[in-house]
Amino acid sequence: MKQKLFYVILIASFALSAVAHYSHMSKTLQFVLCCIAVVFAAGFMGKATESVAHYAGERIGGFLNATFGNAAELIIAIFLVKDGLYDMVKASITGSIIGNMLLVLGLSVLLGGLKFKVQKFNVMLAGYNASLMLLAVVALFIPALFAKSFTTKETDTLSLIVAVILIVAYALWLLFSMITHKEELADVAAVQAEEAHAHEINWSKGKSVLFLVIATVMVAFISEWLVGTLEEFTHKFGLSELFVGAFLIAIIGNAAEHSAAVFLALKNKIGAAVEIAIGSSLQIALFVAPVLVLVSYFMGNTMNIVFTVYELAAIGVSAVIAKSISQDGSTSWYEGVLLLVVYVILGIAFYLV
Amino acid sequence: MKQKLFYVILIASFALSAVAHYSHMSKTLQFVLCCIAVVFAAGFMGKATESVAHYAGERIGGFLNATFGNAAELIIAIFLVKDGLYDMVKASITGSIIGNMLLVLGLSVLLGGLKFKVQKFNVMLAGYNASLMLLAVVALFIPALFAKSFTTKETDTLSLIVAVILIVAYALWLLFSMITHKEELADVAAVQAEEAHAHEINWSKGKSVLFLVIATVMVAFISEWLVGTLEEFTHKFGLSELFVGAFLIAIIGNAAEHSAAVFLALKNKIGAAVEIAIGSSLQIALFVAPVLVLVSYFMGNTMNIVFTVYELAAIGVSAVIAKSISQDGSTSWYEGVLLLVVYVILGIAFYLV
Amino acid sequence: MKQKLFYVILIASFALSAVAHYSHMSKTLQFVLCCIAVVFAAGFMGKATESVAHYAGERIGGFLNATFGNAAELIIAIFLVKDGLYDMVKASITGSIIGNMLLVLGLSVLLGGLKFKVQKFNVMLAGYNASLMLLAVVALFIPALFAKSFTTKETDTLSLIVAVILIVAYALWLLFSMITHKEELADVAAVQAEEAHAHEINWSKGKSVLFLVIATVMVAFISEWLVGTLEEFTHKFGLSELFVGAFLIAIIGNAAEHSAAVFLALKNKIGAAVEIAIGSSLQIALFVAPVLVLVSYFMGNTMNIVFTVYELAAIGVSAVIAKSISQDGSTSWYEGVLLLVVYVILGIAFYLV
Repeated sequence: MKQKLFYVILIASFALSAVAHYSHMSKTLQFVLCCIAVVFAAGFMGKATESVAHYAGERIGGFLNATFGNAAELIIAIFLVKDGLYDMVKASITGSIIGNMLLVLGLSVLLGGLKFKVQKFNVMLAGYNASLMLLAVVALFIPALFAKSFTTKETDTLSLIVAVILIVAYALWLLFSMITHKEELADVAAVQAEEAHAHEINWSKGKSVLFLVIATVMVAFISEWLVGTLEEFTHKFGLSELFVGAFLIAIIGNAAEHSAAVFLALKNKIGAAVEIAIGSSLQIALFVAPVLVLVSYFMGNTMNIVFTVYELAAIGVSAVIAKSISQDGSTSWYEGVLLLVVYVILGIAFYLV
Repeated sequence: MKQKLFYVILIASFALSAVAHYSHMSKTLQFVLCCIAVVFAAGFMGKATESVAHYAGERIGGFLNATFGNAAELIIAIFLVKDGLYDMVKASITGSIIGNMLLVLGLSVLLGGLKFKVQKFNVMLAGYNASLMLLAVVALFIPALFAKSFTTKETDTLSLIVAVILIVAYALWLLFSMITHKEELADVAAVQAEEAHAHEINWSKGKSVLFLVIATVMVAFISEWLVGTLEEFTHKFGLSELFVGAFLIAIIGNAAEHSAAVFLALKNKIGAAVEIAIGSSLQIALFVAPVLVLVSYFMGNTMNIVFTVYELAAIGVSAVIAKSISQDGSTSWYEGVLLLVVYVILGIAFYLV
Repeated sequence: MKQKLFYVILIASFALSAVAHYSHMSKTLQFVLCCIAVVFAAGFMGKATESVAHYAGERIGGFLNATFGNAAELIIAIFLVKDGLYDMVKASITGSIIGNMLLVLGLSVLLGGLKFKVQKFNVMLAGYNASLMLLAVVALFIPALFAKSFTTKETDTLSLIVAVILIVAYALWLLFSMITHKEELADVAAVQAEEAHAHEINWSKGKSVLFLVIATVMVAFISEWLVGTLEEFTHKFGLSELFVGAFLIAIIGNAAEHSAAVFLALKNKIGAAVEIAIGSSLQIALFVAPVLVLVSYFMGNTMNIVFTVYELAAIGVSAVIAKSISQDGSTSWYEGVLLLVVYVILGIAFYLV
C-alpha cells in the first residue's frame, strides 16, 4: 500500500516536472516540482541500487551501495558543471558535507536521544571517521591556502593531483573498511545488514538493473530541469548562489539520507545512523568532489578545488564539532542540539552574506 | 575569627573606595582600592548566592549558582557597555574565558598534581565541556569571519540572532546537565555538594535574600567606580585596553573562582575544580557575552559579537589546549605547566601589542 | 661484517665530500656527496651518543639521547643561521617537524600495519604527545599572528621570550617523562630499552667520548659544505628555498630516525616507533627551534620565530592529523596511508609554490 503510493508520487511528480519544464511554466513552480520529483527519484534509485547490490554479492554490493549512495547529488552537480556554474557546485558540495554532519546527524542524535537516554556505537569507527574528515578538510584547505601564490595553471594542476590522490585514498578506505578490517569496524557491517533487512528484495536480477538505469535517467532529466530554474529562482527571491547551493540544493539532494538516518536512530541503531550521516559526508568530500574536478577537466574547462573561505570555515567547523561529539562513541539528545545550533548559525550567516 | 576579618576588609575596602572616588583622589589609588573591594564584594555575593540557593531548593538553587557565578563580571561589563567601552567589554570577556581555562585550570592542575601523582575526573563531563567550548568558539568565529562582507546592520542582526541562540543553547545545557542527565555527569553534582558542605549556611532566608541584594548593589557601585578609573590608569602606564581588559579586569573579576578551584584541587577534588574553571568559561561565552549583546541592544546601541582576531585566536587556542588536556579524564602536574605556559605566551603577546 | 661496511662508507663518503668541496667540483655533485656523507655521519653520531649515554647512567643517558637525537639537524641549522639563511632554517625546521609526524610515522604505521593487523601503544603517552604538539603549534602561531602589529624589535623580544619559555617547558617535560611519571609513560622507557638492546655497546668510555667528538666534528664539516651548495643547487633545478629546506634537507637530516622507526614498527614495537617519530618532532619544535633563535641572538642578529603562513599551515595540519590518528593508542595500515597522503599533498603544494 505504502509502496504503491510511493510509485504514484514518483511518476506523477516526474511527469508534472516534465510538463512544467517543456511548457515553460513559471520557474518557481518548476523549481518546486523538480524538488519533489528529485527526492522521490533519488529514493527509487536507492532501492534499485540495493537490489542490484543484493545480486552482485556482498563485496561488490557494498561497493555499489557506497558509490551510488550520493549518485543523485553527483548527477545534479554534473549538470551544474556542464553549465559552468562552478560556484554553485562548490556551494552544493559544501552544503552536502555540512548538511550530513550537522543536520542529518543532529536530527538523528536529538530524536534518538529523546527516546533513549544514551545511545552507543563503535568507538574505533568513530575514530577513523574523524581522521578521514580531517583529511577531507586538509585536502580542501591546502589548495585554497596556496592558491593565493599560484597561477591559474598551477592551481588547476594542484587541484587535479589532489583529486586523484583523494580518489585513491577513498578507494583504499573502502578496501580497508569493507575487506581487511571489516570486523573491527562493526557498524559498517551493521548498516549493510540493516539496509538488507529494511527492504525486502523482491525484484529479479534483470528488473533490478533495468530499474537502476531508469532511475538514473530520471534523476538526470530532473537535475537538468532543476539546474535550469536556479538562476531565475535565486534572483527572484534575492538569495545568494551560496545559500541556494549550500542549503536548498543540499537538503533536497540528501533527503533520502535524512529520513533513513533518523529512522535508524529511533530504532536505537545510532551506529548505523552515524555511519550514514558521516559516511555520506566523507563520500562527498573524498569521492564526489574529486570526481567533479576530473569531469570538468575532461569537459575541457577544469573546475579547481579551491573553495571560498566561508565554505572552508563551514566544513572545518562542522568536522571539528562532529568529531568532538562522536569521538566518545556515545550520544545523547543535547549533542543533537549542539549540532543543530551550529547548523542554524551557519545557515543564517550564509543567508545574510 | 577568619569570617570576621573577611567582613572587616569587605566593609573597609568598600568604604575606602567610596571615599577615594567621591573625593577625587588619584585614579591609580582608586583603581587599586576598587580592585581589592570588588574581590571581597564578589566573595560576599558568592556566599549570599549559595545561601539563597540553599533555601530555593536543589534545582532552582543549582540554577541560581550557575547564573550568579559570574554576576560580578556581568555587572562590571554592564557598566562598561553603558559607557560604550565595547572594546574593553570584549577584551574582558576574552580574558575571563582564557583566564578560567588556562590560569585557573592550570594552577589547579599544577598544584593538585604536585600533591597527588594522578588526579581523575568524569570523562563524560569532560567530553561535553569540550563540545560546548567548541560551540562557543564557533559562535564567536563565524560572525567575525562573515562580518567582513556584511554591512553594520547585517552584523548587528547576526549578532543578536547568535546571542539568542546561545542563550537558548545554554538554557538547554542547564536542563540537560542538571535534570535529564544529572547522574551521568556526576561531577556537576559533586561541585554542588562540595559547595553546600564547604560553607555552613547560618543565615535565615530573609537575611540571605537581603545580603544578596546588598552584595549586588555593592558590586554595582564598585564596578562603576572601577570603570571610571580605567581610561586614565591605562594611559598612565601605557597599557593597551586589550591588555587591561583581558588580563587585569579578568583576573580581578575571577578571583573568587581562582581560590575556590585551587583549594578543591588540593583536596584531590579535581573534578570539581575542572567544573568551576571550565564551567565558568562556558558561562561567560554562552551566557554572559550574549546577555551583554542583548543589554546593549536594549540600551539603544547594539554591541556586535565580532571579536578581534587576537581575541578569537586566544579563545580558540585556549579551548583547543584545555580540550586536549581534559579529554582523558585525568591530570598531572605537567598538564598544569602546559596550560600556564600558553597563558604566559598569550599574556606577553597581549602586553606587547 | 655489516658494521665494517658502515665505517667504510662513512669514511669514504666523508673523504669524497671533502675532496669535492675543496677542489670546487660541480655543486650538484657536492650536494649529492654531502647528502650521503651526512646520513652516515648522523648514524655514527647516534651510535656514539648511545655509547656515551650508556656510561653516563640512566638519567643523564636518557637526557643525552633526547637532546643529541636531533644534533645533526641542529648543526646543519646552525650553519644556515651563520650564513643568515633564516628562511631556509625555518623551512628545514618545518620540514623536520612534518617529516617526522607524517613521513616517518606514516611509513612506520603503514608497514607495521601490513604485517600486524592492529598495533597498540600507551594511550596516556599519546595524549601527552598530542598536548605538547598543540603547545608547539600555539607557540609558533601566536608570534606569527601578533607580528603583523609589531615592530621588528617587539617581534624579536617576543621571539626570545617564547624561545626561553619553550626550552623551560621542554626541560620540565624531560623531568616529567623521565623522572616523576616514568612508569605511567611506559613507551618512553621502551624506546630506551630498545635502543640499549639494539646496539651492543663495545666501546670503552674514553673511546665513546672521543667518537662522539669526532662524529660531531664530521657532521659540522659536512653541514658547512652542504649549506654552501644549496643556493646554486636550488637555482639550477628551479626549486624554492621552501621546498629544499622543508623536504630535501629535512629528509636527509632525519634519515636515521626514518629507518629506526620503521624497523621497530616491523618488530611490532609501534609504541617505540611512535615515540621516535613524535618525540623527534616535539624536540625540533620545543628545543631545536628555540635554541636556534637564541644562537642567532648571540651571533648578533636575532632570527625571529615568525614562520610563514604556509609553514604554519603545514605544521598545524600535521599536528592535527597525527593527533587524531594516535589518540586511540592503536594503529592499522590505513592510518599510515592517511598520514602519507597528507605528506604528499603538502609536498606537491610546497613544490609548486
